[in-house]
Amino acid sequence: MKNDSELTTARLLITCPDRPGIVSAVSSFLYNHGANITALDQYATASEQGTYFMRLEFQTPHLDVSRQVLPATFAEAVARRYEMQWTLSFASDYKKVAILVSKHDHALLELLWRWSRQSLPCAIHSVISNHPDLGSEVERFGVPFHHIPFTAEHRQDSEAQMEALLAGADLIVLARFMQILSPEMVARWPHRIINIHHSFLPAFVGANPYQQAYDKGVKLIGATAHYVTADLDQGPIIEQGVHRVSHRHDVESLRALGQEMERQVLARAVRWHLEDRVLVHANKTIVFD
Amino acid sequence: MKNDSELTTARLLITCPDRPGIVSAVSSFLYNHGANITALDQYATASEQGTYFMRLEFQTPHLDVSRQVLPATFAEAVARRYEMQWTLSFASDYKKVAILVSKHDHALLELLWRWSRQSLPCAIHSVISNHPDLGSEVERFGVPFHHIPFTAEHRQDSEAQMEALLAGADLIVLARFMQILSPEMVARWPHRIINIHHSFLPAFVGANPYQQAYDKGVKLIGATAHYVTADLDQGPIIEQGVHRVSHRHDVESLRALGQEMERQVLARAVRWHLEDRVLVHANKTIVFD
Amino acid sequence: MKNDSELTTARLLITCPDRPGIVSAVSSFLYNHGANITALDQYATASEQGTYFMRLEFQTPHLDVSRQVLPATFAEAVARRYEMQWTLSFASDYKKVAILVSKHDHALLELLWRWSRQSLPCAIHSVISNHPDLGSEVERFGVPFHHIPFTAEHRQDSEAQMEALLAGADLIVLARFMQILSPEMVARWPHRIINIHHSFLPAFVGANPYQQAYDKGVKLIGATAHYVTADLDQGPIIEQGVHRVSHRHDVESLRALGQEMERQVLARAVRWHLEDRVLVHANKTIVFD
Amino acid sequence: MKNDSELTTARLLITCPDRPGIVSAVSSFLYNHGANITALDQYATASEQGTYFMRLEFQTPHLDVSRQVLPATFAEAVARRYEMQWTLSFASDYKKVAILVSKHDHALLELLWRWSRQSLPCAIHSVISNHPDLGSEVERFGVPFHHIPFTAEHRQDSEAQMEALLAGADLIVLARFMQILSPEMVARWPHRIINIHHSFLPAFVGANPYQQAYDKGVKLIGATAHYVTADLDQGPIIEQGVHRVSHRHDVESLRALGQEMERQVLARAVRWHLEDRVLVHANKTIVFD
Repeated sequence: MKNDSELTTARLLITCPDRPGIVSAVSSFLYNHGANITALDQYATASEQGTYFMRLEFQTPHLDVSRQVLPATFAEAVARRYEMQWTLSFASDYKKVAILVSKHDHALLELLWRWSRQSLPCAIHSVISNHPDLGSEVERFGVPFHHIPFTAEHRQDSEAQMEALLAGADLIVLARFMQILSPEMVARWPHRIINIHHSFLPAFVGANPYQQAYDKGVKLIGATAHYVTADLDQGPIIEQGVHRVSHRHDVESLRALGQEMERQVLARAVRWHLEDRVLVHANKTIVFD
Repeated sequence: MKNDSELTTARLLITCPDRPGIVSAVSSFLYNHGANITALDQYATASEQGTYFMRLEFQTPHLDVSRQVLPATFAEAVARRYEMQWTLSFASDYKKVAILVSKHDHALLELLWRWSRQSLPCAIHSVISNHPDLGSEVERFGVPFHHIPFTAEHRQDSEAQMEALLAGADLIVLARFMQILSPEMVARWPHRIINIHHSFLPAFVGANPYQQAYDKGVKLIGATAHYVTADLDQGPIIEQGVHRVSHRHDVESLRALGQEMERQVLARAVRWHLEDRVLVHANKTIVFD
Repeated sequence: MKNDSELTTARLLITCPDRPGIVSAVSSFLYNHGANITALDQYATASEQGTYFMRLEFQTPHLDVSRQVLPATFAEAVARRYEMQWTLSFASDYKKVAILVSKHDHALLELLWRWSRQSLPCAIHSVISNHPDLGSEVERFGVPFHHIPFTAEHRQDSEAQMEALLAGADLIVLARFMQILSPEMVARWPHRIINIHHSFLPAFVGANPYQQAYDKGVKLIGATAHYVTADLDQGPIIEQGVHRVSHRHDVESLRALGQEMERQVLARAVRWHLEDRVLVHANKTIVFD
Repeated sequence: MKNDSELTTARLLITCPDRPGIVSAVSSFLYNHGANITALDQYATASEQGTYFMRLEFQTPHLDVSRQVLPATFAEAVARRYEMQWTLSFASDYKKVAILVSKHDHALLELLWRWSRQSLPCAIHSVISNHPDLGSEVERFGVPFHHIPFTAEHRQDSEAQMEALLAGADLIVLARFMQILSPEMVARWPHRIINIHHSFLPAFVGANPYQQAYDKGVKLIGATAHYVTADLDQGPIIEQGVHRVSHRHDVESLRALGQEMERQVLARAVRWHLEDRVLVHANKTIVFD
């Protein structure tokens, strides 16, 4: 059930070369077409000659052009002149989210639970797993569950099956999916796959970070949500969290605490993506939270 | 020593009734006069008919009007039409800060120390205390120190002496000043006096909050920086911080931890004020940090 | 499914007047009877003449007396001499937890979910609500759900029905139960009822703390888990958490963030109680976490 | 000025093979000699056959042996039997701390300032720097300052000069000392050199961690205090802290925030060491805080 504000809110995300006049051009365009700007964030990588990023939220009830025509009008009047890369989206067009998972249920359930109480503004497209274990849990939420066995040697086949099922999804969330996606598949979903890594990256890349953290004796453990790129665990970081630990934590209790972190960090990162708050530049994110 | 960016940065803080077109009007005005907007934050209290707040930073090297003329030009072209309350300031015009203190040195020294290493962008106007104890500490920093005895019954006299010394100051910081200023004096410095309260307000108002926190057995203690109003400990909150504690903390160790919080929280609040990041509305702050 | 360590671990919680020799007496008693101490915490309220608190975990496989006989042996050999109040419990004897709830599901589901994945060491006795809404959610977990209408004027009747159902429970958790229990009922469960309050107590006691927090403009919101006493919202605090907020948070988003805090803070407090880590003295808690 | 509690408090730190009866043996020994145990912490690396660690604080006024004789008595009666490595110290025997620093003053001043207000229980032995810059700052505190030029090629000479000056010091703190000590020198001060590293280790080892953090786009930056070992930045971690950052932080503001972290984290680590709260095992620390 969408609320009033969702029905009337549109969002514009812009990346372009920085030069004077952008705010004026964009805001005047919107004002002249009857849009009321209710949020505006901007950032530039340098004081001169850098890259410029902007996020606007505006209200559409008094628009003098239709939602269908607005993009072309904006392109012609503003975007082309400033060489903008941009997306325009409407809060009421919920993004379709597919979740990939293996056997751990904590991150998955946190997302489904938030979604089911309207605190993640999206449609859940489907859940796909390389194990059958979580099927009944998922189906209780009224969400389609697909089991696709996945092994390194048959990855191509498995991915082909998955991608057939993923048709129509806008975002893929790896909620502890313990397989590595091929660079080819990753390339087809640029900055549209979010992974939760169970450590404070760039510390403890790779397998079993809790064991690594235990062996190292760190005093804080963390979790990192990032976009997936071809380079494992090296994609742009969206959000991170940490929790204090001590010598009393064994690997098992580090894992339990870490899973709390993962739930919170992933949920925040996914919500920011859904609300068009995340831009990527030079393998880093700009998050307008 | 001011850096390049300080020499060229101006800031505009605006409060006005919310209506469409404000961003467009302000940004177009600045663009048309050769200013380059490098930061922009806005907030409105409601989606319609609320109050609108805006903070802009812009670069002045290519302005087509002088800094002296800019305010009048802005007033006529924009501010009047939108019924704006506004201030225009230049980063290079450092605000003059007077610090009032009693015997505790921690908050005072933190401010002086940050100021002396150019991490608080201000001029220190003077330090005034109702005790002579901290004189030599202050003078080491090359800052004038004034001792003005202060008792409740002679408050009027003491305040008169203080206000004579405070001539020219832009901001008064109560860095653990253990006297209550008169409503009359407070009224002469609206939202220009910052106090650090040694608790997480609104819990533990009044005297000896550490003893109160200890007696209550709270698991977190805090500090609160707020603007001073006539209503003791009830002024608009600028910043708060907390630190975890346990049954093992006695009143003395709560105090020691609390003082760390006070140093950090006060320094952040003062910096935000100096950078024109704080607006007040309905006894609450909008902080564009 | 209990793990090995749970099958062999016993816990001793002791409160007594502080005097020399307690550690020696208790540890020698346990050693002489074949128990291996694996954790020991102690605390005294003052360096002399205070109250002394102790928590021990020990392993039972090599005990030379049965679990049944151990308490009487300890009472005679040690406890009486030092005027101890004490409890001895075995980790494998899971405490039975009843949960009281109204319509909000977040705190309830967090507890059920952690319990169902063996991360809350207890048996769930039942869930009782003054609304029927959450029945099917609860029953999915295989937990009995009882709906008992509850109004202020018929509180006596409602509580009588509840207490009949609560027979055999060791701990009552108010997971956002929006009714006030009578002092009589509270007195029958001393330090065995845990409530989650949706603010950082002692700030914002009473109803609608999020609205209060919003009106006050605080920069941190919190949640507080405490034992219930006859004095509303004034019982001993077990655990607290806070989250940073800004002027951008409206009451609704404060509530959403607050609910995350409530879930985490309540789950920690309940776990500590279940693991016999909490002692109460002078309306404050000693938590050996 | 030492307080009453410091005059009467002794501390025992023990490491030994874990076996039943240790608590009983140690506490009975102390009780029988008139010591009153006021704090006791213990930890074992495994439930059986692990290594056992213990920290006790006890009060000495009613000891039936002198402080001089106590160690030999303890060795004979207890330590030998349990194959203990142990240290006995008296809170009134302040450890002598030498601080090594280069040009950054923040960590140094934080330590000197805390020490000067009796919140770091130690004697400051001296400050040694490879630059003359901070001499007058240090001498204001009444602390000897030595300037010893230090270059990689003459490290042996420089270290020889330093070690001559360090005679009598109990602890060396590297408060941003930008030179690498030789393995030989490090070996002469086992777990008695504390370094503050300006990142959340093990992320960003080596030079310029703020630039590394900026390039990586992390959302939290940190600081790590650790004992120095021959392996650069790999010694046992004593304490860590983090602070939230965003894309808006440039390298300079990361550095400013990081320095706040460094001050706090280093001060905590040094205090814990001074209070005999830190044990090292398998390149990790046990901190009884």
